[in-house]
Amino acid sequence: MELWVSIGSTYSYLTVMRIDAAARAAGVPVTVRPFNVRAIMVEQNNIPFKDKPVKTAYMWRDIERRAARHGLPVRVPAPYPLPDLPLANAVALLGQREGWGWEYIRDTYRRWFLDGQPPGEAPNLTGCLRALGRDPEATVARARSPEIEAALAAETEAAKTAGVFGSPSFIVGGEVFWGDDRLEDALDWAGRPA
Amino acid sequence: MELWVSIGSTYSYLTVMRIDAAARAAGVPVTVRPFNVRAIMVEQNNIPFKDKPVKTAYMWRDIERRAARHGLPVRVPAPYPLPDLPLANAVALLGQREGWGWEYIRDTYRRWFLDGQPPGEAPNLTGCLRALGRDPEATVARARSPEIEAALAAETEAAKTAGVFGSPSFIVGGEVFWGDDRLEDALDWAGRPA
Repeated sequence: MELWVSIGSTYSYLTVMRIDAAARAAGVPVTVRPFNVRAIMVEQNNIPFKDKPVKTAYMWRDIERRAARHGLPVRVPAPYPLPDLPLANAVALLGQREGWGWEYIRDTYRRWFLDGQPPGEAPNLTGCLRALGRDPEATVARARSPEIEAALAAETEAAKTAGVFGSPSFIVGGEVFWGDDRLEDALDWAGRPA
Repeated sequence: MELWVSIGSTYSYLTVMRIDAAARAAGVPVTVRPFNVRAIMVEQNNIPFKDKPVKTAYMWRDIERRAARHGLPVRVPAPYPLPDLPLANAVALLGQREGWGWEYIRDTYRRWFLDGQPPGEAPNLTGCLRALGRDPEATVARARSPEIEAALAAETEAAKTAGVFGSPSFIVGGEVFWGDDRLEDALDWAGRPA
């Protein structure tokens, strides 16, 4: 199963925190693919929360209740939207190439949703990279390189081609499942007889 | 628990078909309150599917898969959006006053999602009313009366005041749960110790 995740998505907090245990219990291996969901959503005129205060207030309360349901700590509202979403995901993509991406994604979400620090900027970004034993300045410089910028754009294009329009999305055998509340459906689909 | 439902909402098909059994199993009584969700969504600039072909295609596939998961028949895509959404819900409201509203709502959804007939117009509306033993012309005239029009507007205002912005929504002890995929959360909430 592929997890397409974009740091900056609020509901993805729930998935990032619980997918390891859920996928392990289901016996389903997961490949994590960071992308820039905002680029797709803007292109598709899919703007779920901007200038929608009632729906936004509901979203935070819903995340709070869902977190409690899953036994996850949470402090809402977290800072939103994120100004540095593209950089946060470029770092994640670089990390995926070097083997520390998933640990970074989980840590940046924890600092965002537990400590109120927006990803993609100090102190969240620097704190995550230092905790991983990486030099923040050098790592950010590489994440901002044309190579990683192009790679993130290519992954975002691949997400779009696969039918992904939001984060988190799960892809299993060509089927797209969107939203943390479809994680169980996706895992069940992965376990179906071929 | 209150079910706020607006005929015209696609995901509400799943709820309309399964809430009786789910609520009975949970021992939770349900009050059904029809309203005009489109009026609230337009006012709140919350337009989830118009001019969003990727998200719309996903919605139909998701409903198809969710229906299968719940063992419900479905034929998608159903006609959408509905031109006569306000009349369909005015008839539902009139029916709620006279004791046949819920049967009408279920039947009009079945004809919409199984036979491809849009609610709020012939042959769906006439077929439902005849099956209920009611005169279609006289019933529609009453549903179009200033009294029922004002009552639907008042219910829609009450929905908005309660924090409802979409259909289906469940209200339990002041908590709003939005979406068919929150039905279980709402029923669990209703069962919590006070």
